[in-house]
Amino acid sequence: MRVGVLTGGGDCPGLNAVIRAVVRRGVRDHGFELIGYRDGWKGPLEGLTMPLGIEECRGILPRGGTILGSSRTNPFAIDDGVERIRANLASDGVDALVAIGGEDTLGVATKLADAGVSVVGVPKTIDNDLSGTDFTFGFDTAVNIATDAIDRLHTTAESHHRVLVVEVMGRHAGWIALHSGMAGGASAILIPEQPFDIDAVCDHVQTRFESEYAPIVVVSEGAVPKDGGDMTLSSGEKDSFGHVRLGGIGDRLAHEIEQRTGKEARAVVLGHIQRGGTPTAFDRWLATRFGLQAADAVADGDFGTMMALRGTRIDRVPLHEGTGELKTVSPAEYAEAEVFFG
Amino acid sequence: MRVGVLTGGGDCPGLNAVIRAVVRRGVRDHGFELIGYRDGWKGPLEGLTMPLGIEECRGILPRGGTILGSSRTNPFAIDDGVERIRANLASDGVDALVAIGGEDTLGVATKLADAGVSVVGVPKTIDNDLSGTDFTFGFDTAVNIATDAIDRLHTTAESHHRVLVVEVMGRHAGWIALHSGMAGGASAILIPEQPFDIDAVCDHVQTRFESEYAPIVVVSEGAVPKDGGDMTLSSGEKDSFGHVRLGGIGDRLAHEIEQRTGKEARAVVLGHIQRGGTPTAFDRWLATRFGLQAADAVADGDFGTMMALRGTRIDRVPLHEGTGELKTVSPAEYAEAEVFFG
Amino acid sequence: MRVGVLTGGGDCPGLNAVIRAVVRRGVRDHGFELIGYRDGWKGPLEGLTMPLGIEECRGILPRGGTILGSSRTNPFAIDDGVERIRANLASDGVDALVAIGGEDTLGVATKLADAGVSVVGVPKTIDNDLSGTDFTFGFDTAVNIATDAIDRLHTTAESHHRVLVVEVMGRHAGWIALHSGMAGGASAILIPEQPFDIDAVCDHVQTRFESEYAPIVVVSEGAVPKDGGDMTLSSGEKDSFGHVRLGGIGDRLAHEIEQRTGKEARAVVLGHIQRGGTPTAFDRWLATRFGLQAADAVADGDFGTMMALRGTRIDRVPLHEGTGELKTVSPAEYAEAEVFFG
Amino acid sequence: MRVGVLTGGGDCPGLNAVIRAVVRRGVRDHGFELIGYRDGWKGPLEGLTMPLGIEECRGILPRGGTILGSSRTNPFAIDDGVERIRANLASDGVDALVAIGGEDTLGVATKLADAGVSVVGVPKTIDNDLSGTDFTFGFDTAVNIATDAIDRLHTTAESHHRVLVVEVMGRHAGWIALHSGMAGGASAILIPEQPFDIDAVCDHVQTRFESEYAPIVVVSEGAVPKDGGDMTLSSGEKDSFGHVRLGGIGDRLAHEIEQRTGKEARAVVLGHIQRGGTPTAFDRWLATRFGLQAADAVADGDFGTMMALRGTRIDRVPLHEGTGELKTVSPAEYAEAEVFFG
Repeated sequence: MRVGVLTGGGDCPGLNAVIRAVVRRGVRDHGFELIGYRDGWKGPLEGLTMPLGIEECRGILPRGGTILGSSRTNPFAIDDGVERIRANLASDGVDALVAIGGEDTLGVATKLADAGVSVVGVPKTIDNDLSGTDFTFGFDTAVNIATDAIDRLHTTAESHHRVLVVEVMGRHAGWIALHSGMAGGASAILIPEQPFDIDAVCDHVQTRFESEYAPIVVVSEGAVPKDGGDMTLSSGEKDSFGHVRLGGIGDRLAHEIEQRTGKEARAVVLGHIQRGGTPTAFDRWLATRFGLQAADAVADGDFGTMMALRGTRIDRVPLHEGTGELKTVSPAEYAEAEVFFG
Repeated sequence: MRVGVLTGGGDCPGLNAVIRAVVRRGVRDHGFELIGYRDGWKGPLEGLTMPLGIEECRGILPRGGTILGSSRTNPFAIDDGVERIRANLASDGVDALVAIGGEDTLGVATKLADAGVSVVGVPKTIDNDLSGTDFTFGFDTAVNIATDAIDRLHTTAESHHRVLVVEVMGRHAGWIALHSGMAGGASAILIPEQPFDIDAVCDHVQTRFESEYAPIVVVSEGAVPKDGGDMTLSSGEKDSFGHVRLGGIGDRLAHEIEQRTGKEARAVVLGHIQRGGTPTAFDRWLATRFGLQAADAVADGDFGTMMALRGTRIDRVPLHEGTGELKTVSPAEYAEAEVFFG
Repeated sequence: MRVGVLTGGGDCPGLNAVIRAVVRRGVRDHGFELIGYRDGWKGPLEGLTMPLGIEECRGILPRGGTILGSSRTNPFAIDDGVERIRANLASDGVDALVAIGGEDTLGVATKLADAGVSVVGVPKTIDNDLSGTDFTFGFDTAVNIATDAIDRLHTTAESHHRVLVVEVMGRHAGWIALHSGMAGGASAILIPEQPFDIDAVCDHVQTRFESEYAPIVVVSEGAVPKDGGDMTLSSGEKDSFGHVRLGGIGDRLAHEIEQRTGKEARAVVLGHIQRGGTPTAFDRWLATRFGLQAADAVADGDFGTMMALRGTRIDRVPLHEGTGELKTVSPAEYAEAEVFFG
Repeated sequence: MRVGVLTGGGDCPGLNAVIRAVVRRGVRDHGFELIGYRDGWKGPLEGLTMPLGIEECRGILPRGGTILGSSRTNPFAIDDGVERIRANLASDGVDALVAIGGEDTLGVATKLADAGVSVVGVPKTIDNDLSGTDFTFGFDTAVNIATDAIDRLHTTAESHHRVLVVEVMGRHAGWIALHSGMAGGASAILIPEQPFDIDAVCDHVQTRFESEYAPIVVVSEGAVPKDGGDMTLSSGEKDSFGHVRLGGIGDRLAHEIEQRTGKEARAVVLGHIQRGGTPTAFDRWLATRFGLQAADAVADGDFGTMMALRGTRIDRVPLHEGTGELKTVSPAEYAEAEVFFG
């Protein structure tokens, strides 16, 4: 059996660990021959392949990134995209695909599976917002990087009697902010799921200053103020280059807090350092187990499925389940974090 | 309501996070007054208390260790131990106890609960071998420390064409070895649950040398050779000081591998660095949530329960469930790791 | 003898280590009584003191920030500032001051010494731009944090065939960029001392893409393009909030590289995470030795001096020497880094 | 010009950074052709070569170990060793050698230079005990690893009211113990240069217990008790396997302290984790600059020299200077650390 592997979407620590596990299990226990498709869906679309055996996977387990490269190419946005993929798989002699990616990449996989292509999916997003699985790999690494940053910023906040606003990733879901904010002892955590009240945020800031510890506010890049929240600037606008990041929510919030509380406030935007580099042990373990299970799913002919962590088990769930609806922070989960605000 | 808190057994990153969460939730949402008992069960036994309010908990979230101190005192091993605890709780005006600890500490909690004392338990062990919960806090930190060490040792093994044996914690259960060995790309992982065949270990070592990567063998301190495994030395013996650690399994195994394969082999015994220092983000998050739920269990009068992680939920399970039987690595879980041996 | 200690200017890992060493040496070997002045020069100006003995210094060695607080208050900018300091020192019975700070704080110390106040200085700047000393503490920590970030970004750059621009601290001197860029394997390093040629930067970027590794460009916040360099935007302009950081050089450079090379480029602005948190071992060692020597200088009556690292020795140099002229990266030092460009 | 490069002796973070810098400078600025000799002096002795160009050096900067391999082979201990090296260099067309190593490797280099071979040396030892240079690369990494471990052990010591003894590398010189002990806030630091008084060590331990912080004792593997110090066991003895490490000074000291003070004491032997893995920024910077200077020395025909850090400059000193006498901790340097004992 010949099996293709590809990785799509944004960088995420643990991709190489999945690849290595698919290869190792496939070669050792199922007699697969493996082939790498480069740069996400662009690979099968344009026939970009690379050899993928046990040798190619030596030493990659602790390395971030992906030896296969990635892209955001969507074959359904291209004329004959699906036909070209079918043709390339056929001419490469590939019987089945393992697609490792997030909402977009697995969305394509879902449609291809519906169209009869033999594909299994491995969920990947540092944002942890894919349904059907307790956690995705990459998330734990991102949370630890953000928490380390928050730990460092505490001393600066305290020594200078300043507010520090930390903007972390999360456009639609606040998981990184929630976990790193709880782990880092934030005075307030602002997430997309819960539009924030700027007055309440400033109250938390003031409360914290009454102790000897200075406030850290952790904010998801996608957090927005409540309607009528009367922030000087509304969210989402672009700077003069057309970049959304400039004047992002972190900077705007620091400005607003400074204006309202009279305390110096500074923003730190963590950006891409959250998604690169060596994965944590948890992410390597999870990614490895996803890879093993994906190879088994292919061997079992269990296509159209996505690997999922449930407790400590790796289950297979329908691809639709993972990509149908975004997994967001529930009010009850957010309420746990609120216990520590102020 | 007056609630006492204590921490027992070995050091474990995340203890302070639990304490802080119990206090914060208790004071803020349940109107508790809290009191700290020092040094595990020795505290209520001898009436050793300390103030425990929101102030005492400032800044402790990222700190390893426990502000309450710890011990291995067992009141059931002491005449009138239980009576003295009852008397001290009564004279301190304490209505309920939150006991944070491992098998021994929670074993005492279980018996006290059976004897009518109002107690809830929070599971703690870096070994991750308590039943009823997917994970215990401290474990993720230990696994990351061990994985970092393994990452470092790879370069030495490769540059010197050497075998490196890494001995990690785990007397009765191989969880730390399993997770750090999988995350660190070990050539073999030896755990107490699966007596090892020294010939097979040496085969894995030889196989790895045939690639350009040198072998790392990860071994739990409690791992033992198979009967008839013909190791030069059997396990468990003590050195001339009566210490078991000297001449522990790591050292013996390195010696044995060197003798059998003719390759230089060195052992590294990680020891106590696995259990100290700042917790990972995962452990802070888990410990915090255990603490919140423990305070809620007390408020609900739900005594005799232990907090447990199930998927991403914190449930309460009967204390008996956590302490009845050790949670060990199953053959299926071990088989996943074996895919990468050699 | 009664000795006051203060810390001024921006946060810098190692401040607490200096304080602890001054106290320990002073109390143990010179019979000093110590007193802390809070919040930089604001402390002696307004008579803000705190007790400072061996007890207050327990556990602070690994902690970032400063237990004394800091500010940028300049007594020479305030009417009667110097007289008020003299009066407060007299009423507090303080015979001598140890001032720990950067260019501004030590500039004040220099003028006070000239005016007859008994003061010794300890150089502090994460930017490493104080003359007279090989290194200042805090710098090594900042460089390691920046290098870790660069290491992480490599994988993202490679997996996505992207350019990553990393903006590090350094308004007037490029030391952090130089050291972290050399340590991180940057394709180009841009520093204030060497106005950059945007065409040359784009050439380096293109060259790196011809190998399988993607380019990282490290840029000091104070770097500027050469005259006539034809960047779309000139440096230094402010965003609509009046913040210089928005649309800083990192963002502008990423935009420019993307426009010119046709490759996706992203900026990461490390900001305050470079100056907080636990110091590296080198910074703790250097800070501790500065503190010991500062206490000795006070005991010797060697006022008007600044502690300086020369090779592995701690010398005392005139305060004027440290604050007279900024220590910048020489063309020869920059030429070493250029060997690795492209 | 054809230049061979080799690395000898124990693993040391930064070796790859030196190799990369020699190659890059040599190819780019001096027109060298480079060749790698494998496994230290064994390479030129047995004619073991590997290609060594800019391609081979991609991505190696942050990696520990050495892509050239290493050994402890001494050609002067082998009949005709020197003649065989000469013959191999001639047949490989190699005009000059860059030898990267410690006392032994550079000792060979010194003798070969005396015998007319064109060789320059780069000093390498994590122990920092080579004369003629302020620091050697690898040392800063080792000190940071040891300091991290000490930081972690503090919490265990405090929570359990225990003594923790940390054994670090250093057979003949106490630099790692001195720096990590000062950085880690040790209660006592024991080094080979200063035979220790066990009574004084126990006094320091007792003093520390009187505060709320528990003692950490940092000890070099080569530390020895004073004559007549009345330790239960003398140093240096081997266990039943002939390994010196078992029952090393750390374990013996913990036993002795426990016996004398009645406090629980535990030893942690850091071992090989001190010498592997990714180098710190300082070590990458130093190693890179050594490599640049070594290539320049070859281009200048300045053979028989060793690269040396003096302040912030890289100088060339005669090879004899680096290998003639061990650089040890002076009494004055040790006295600085003693300020913090107890």
